[in-house]
Amino acid sequence: MSNKKKILVIGGDLRQIYCSHRLAQSFDVYINGFDDEHLAVSDIKKADASMKREFDYIVLPVPAIRDIRYINAPFSKKAIGIEYVKEFIKPSGIIFGGKLNEYANEILGKDRIYDYTQREEFNILNAIPSAEGAVQLALEELPVTLNGEKILVTGYGRIGRALIGILKGFGADVTALVRSETSNAWAKLAGVKTCREISGNYRLIFNTVPDMIFTGEVFKRLNSDVMIIDLASKPGGVDFETASQLGIKVIWALGLPGKTAPVTSGEIIADIIITIINERSAIDV
Amino acid sequence: MSNKKKILVIGGDLRQIYCSHRLAQSFDVYINGFDDEHLAVSDIKKADASMKREFDYIVLPVPAIRDIRYINAPFSKKAIGIEYVKEFIKPSGIIFGGKLNEYANEILGKDRIYDYTQREEFNILNAIPSAEGAVQLALEELPVTLNGEKILVTGYGRIGRALIGILKGFGADVTALVRSETSNAWAKLAGVKTCREISGNYRLIFNTVPDMIFTGEVFKRLNSDVMIIDLASKPGGVDFETASQLGIKVIWALGLPGKTAPVTSGEIIADIIITIINERSAIDV
Amino acid sequence: MSNKKKILVIGGDLRQIYCSHRLAQSFDVYINGFDDEHLAVSDIKKADASMKREFDYIVLPVPAIRDIRYINAPFSKKAIGIEYVKEFIKPSGIIFGGKLNEYANEILGKDRIYDYTQREEFNILNAIPSAEGAVQLALEELPVTLNGEKILVTGYGRIGRALIGILKGFGADVTALVRSETSNAWAKLAGVKTCREISGNYRLIFNTVPDMIFTGEVFKRLNSDVMIIDLASKPGGVDFETASQLGIKVIWALGLPGKTAPVTSGEIIADIIITIINERSAIDV
Amino acid sequence: MSNKKKILVIGGDLRQIYCSHRLAQSFDVYINGFDDEHLAVSDIKKADASMKREFDYIVLPVPAIRDIRYINAPFSKKAIGIEYVKEFIKPSGIIFGGKLNEYANEILGKDRIYDYTQREEFNILNAIPSAEGAVQLALEELPVTLNGEKILVTGYGRIGRALIGILKGFGADVTALVRSETSNAWAKLAGVKTCREISGNYRLIFNTVPDMIFTGEVFKRLNSDVMIIDLASKPGGVDFETASQLGIKVIWALGLPGKTAPVTSGEIIADIIITIINERSAIDV
Repeated sequence: MSNKKKILVIGGDLRQIYCSHRLAQSFDVYINGFDDEHLAVSDIKKADASMKREFDYIVLPVPAIRDIRYINAPFSKKAIGIEYVKEFIKPSGIIFGGKLNEYANEILGKDRIYDYTQREEFNILNAIPSAEGAVQLALEELPVTLNGEKILVTGYGRIGRALIGILKGFGADVTALVRSETSNAWAKLAGVKTCREISGNYRLIFNTVPDMIFTGEVFKRLNSDVMIIDLASKPGGVDFETASQLGIKVIWALGLPGKTAPVTSGEIIADIIITIINERSAIDV
Repeated sequence: MSNKKKILVIGGDLRQIYCSHRLAQSFDVYINGFDDEHLAVSDIKKADASMKREFDYIVLPVPAIRDIRYINAPFSKKAIGIEYVKEFIKPSGIIFGGKLNEYANEILGKDRIYDYTQREEFNILNAIPSAEGAVQLALEELPVTLNGEKILVTGYGRIGRALIGILKGFGADVTALVRSETSNAWAKLAGVKTCREISGNYRLIFNTVPDMIFTGEVFKRLNSDVMIIDLASKPGGVDFETASQLGIKVIWALGLPGKTAPVTSGEIIADIIITIINERSAIDV
Repeated sequence: MSNKKKILVIGGDLRQIYCSHRLAQSFDVYINGFDDEHLAVSDIKKADASMKREFDYIVLPVPAIRDIRYINAPFSKKAIGIEYVKEFIKPSGIIFGGKLNEYANEILGKDRIYDYTQREEFNILNAIPSAEGAVQLALEELPVTLNGEKILVTGYGRIGRALIGILKGFGADVTALVRSETSNAWAKLAGVKTCREISGNYRLIFNTVPDMIFTGEVFKRLNSDVMIIDLASKPGGVDFETASQLGIKVIWALGLPGKTAPVTSGEIIADIIITIINERSAIDV
Repeated sequence: MSNKKKILVIGGDLRQIYCSHRLAQSFDVYINGFDDEHLAVSDIKKADASMKREFDYIVLPVPAIRDIRYINAPFSKKAIGIEYVKEFIKPSGIIFGGKLNEYANEILGKDRIYDYTQREEFNILNAIPSAEGAVQLALEELPVTLNGEKILVTGYGRIGRALIGILKGFGADVTALVRSETSNAWAKLAGVKTCREISGNYRLIFNTVPDMIFTGEVFKRLNSDVMIIDLASKPGGVDFETASQLGIKVIWALGLPGKTAPVTSGEIIADIIITIINERSAIDV
């Protein structure tokens, strides 16, 4: 019998399968919430109902919850209630998940659940597949090369910086819209051109700002052939209706990490869980 | 009546339409060999049969010829023989085309036809959409991000350099296979890692070398999960059959400029024709 | 008579002269604490003793204070006490300075003095001349090119990021020592190699970490021909004595912005003062 | 007795000493033409007069010749005539040197001497220390950071490309003056801005073009505070006299590789000699 600690991964999509394979390098890993029997192969096993209170750790996806009370498990036909987690976790076990809610905190115990999406490095690392996915969209949708094109990236945070690093490699003429003196200084340090207002004959704009900044007023200051790829989380930063009336093409790009790089996205989750477990062990010792 | 010189663009695909729009900034442009009536819009007109010997310049696509005797005109149901060009061109007119053959030289007169694919800058500029298209394929096909991945680019010529510039922007760990001291020195100058042999745990390889360098012997020195994108023109540089037997994924990526960036590709052709015309005028004066 | 607001710049070195010229684009600027009469030229004037309580703003250098009670004025033979500021500033005036102390706060009034070195963008922008100055030192001291050399940068903060951006342009083989998961993630996003321990055959190391991390133990894991450029503020991050015994070359590089780019450094101060004044006006209105 | 082949390095400066140390990894190396006894240490020995016709290879510096008939040997008080080489070389031996002249060819035999400066990779690799040295000069001479400055590089050959790669890493705003369609295309591929005329408010210009392109006419189209660093070999590309009258600062930067990176420069020579020897062996076998 293995003396590795036991992890149960419940719900989520393919990312959680790749996450499980990575975790299996250090742990004894089981999965649940995947109807397809073939996903539990090589180094990961299917959990069965008899494994009550056997798991040291349980890993939920991001987002962990759907419809308030259920685990987000799109690959399972059967709904899985959050209470289910309690049946499998050891009394001393730890539960990991992304974007947990109040209900989960209450049912599972706030002190033993860990929202890994609140770790800064998780969000930085996730910006990488987001940016690559957004660039892929641009390559697919534009009939021109990125080389030499005028491109605006609004915001100079995690995704903005990742995007600009990539776009400069393409030889694009990139400008960052910055909204603070600090962002402006960081952009200058990196040799990135900045502006404070959205205006100009851009061919492509990536929006990373979660405020409604692309309004009718702004569209007037842009070329009609501009294409906007909106990466801001709901409700997004673009007035879609007005854009549509003006014939401006807008692509709302959400959930890119899971779509464009499920392996990398799954491994990011696994690595952060391993880091957290190691940090906790270090403290315990 | 316009006193602009008259250009007739015959055959080719959408690239030639974008080429025509660009040429229309300086010339009176007509097209032929496109059944779809809607393509002759705004600043370009459909040529009609009565315009005998009216054109100062005729532009053929790349490749210009199919089946030895015909103009490559995939958007026309009717075959168009090369002799057709003679009916429209002025006695003093110039004919442009890509990859012309002996038959065309003979029929049209070697001294008045100009193969623009023999211009070095044409091939350099075309390497840009080729490289971008190849990176798009990689983004679409790989379940991991390019960031951090070990990537090999074989060859450090036009496409190799374009690819490496882009891949470094993604934060990939790129190595160039160089085959001469000169290429090695250029790579060093650009801060690019080099190797002389194909070997290592690469996740992705772009082949730009037109020799059969990926044989069974070489596959043994690679990981089985490597993906190879072959950009070398026919017959390519990869032994597909052996690769297939070994389960190595190979993508043969040809004609990328026209597929991924038809506007840019068409404009490259237009710009080079304008350059050539200007150079000839300068000499005439 | 000008209706521009009046600024008095007291003390500091050449940076404050360049700062004054920049401020003179928007203000009526006087200087004090410079014995050399020729420094007050073109758009800046020498203040005279009669201008009591005339100034809207007074600008002190960085550091503003020496020996607790005096303004840091290396270009003036005469010592200038902090009280001096009070004679010139309007009752409603604002005083700017870098690294002010308790004594200054007490004498001048904490609510009307503004330490611009506490603005994040000041420190980010100052990292640029620091990094350029450090690279200049490396170019001057090393008998080899930076291209192709193995270089370590400890720390991935402001100066570390500025340095690495520059060194990658030289084609150096750069690694960042990171000390947190967040720094590690940012480095990965930028495609920068990282390590957690100082060890390896580096030819050059830039230290930006203000802790004593280069001890005898660490030197053992380095090559004897390594050169260390220490950018950490006092007491620095290198055990100089042990390094010296081992024959390891260490350069303590302090005050680089003022030495290598006094114009840029002065303009950074001017720009930040203008930003702060504008922000205050915006609030007042 | 060693069965390594014997190499004699005659004349030159410190570069030839570093070259000798590198050669000593594969050969039995002697030096001549250095009065300072301490230079012949560790793995290199001083040749003595008795070693007649003992050497398989003789290495001369770059340039190899001074005053038509003498070896360029600045570290030797005594003049060394070219005939001297004949005394030491084996009848079948090979002589390497840089920029040899007709006289040397005649005396030593054209078929057995090899001018390594005619190898393309030598000139590419030498562009690296030239570019780094030029950037060092700029850092030393300018009171501003390179970050954000408008910089022109005339020419997009070896040194131009090396310079631009470095300057982009600094976050400078760089433009390349290109003089051919091919250079223009290469610059575009690398994402470099180009121009065809010298005009604009540049703060710094690097000239790499060996024609007199900076004349009074051109100076009129530049700012008076521009600094020009001329890297073109004699007679250079700048009208110094007119520049001086206009108060434009010009730095004539020659021989940079030997000054700024003698180790790298010496090793470049050694490596190319080893490559040539290996190529010849391959042919002989």
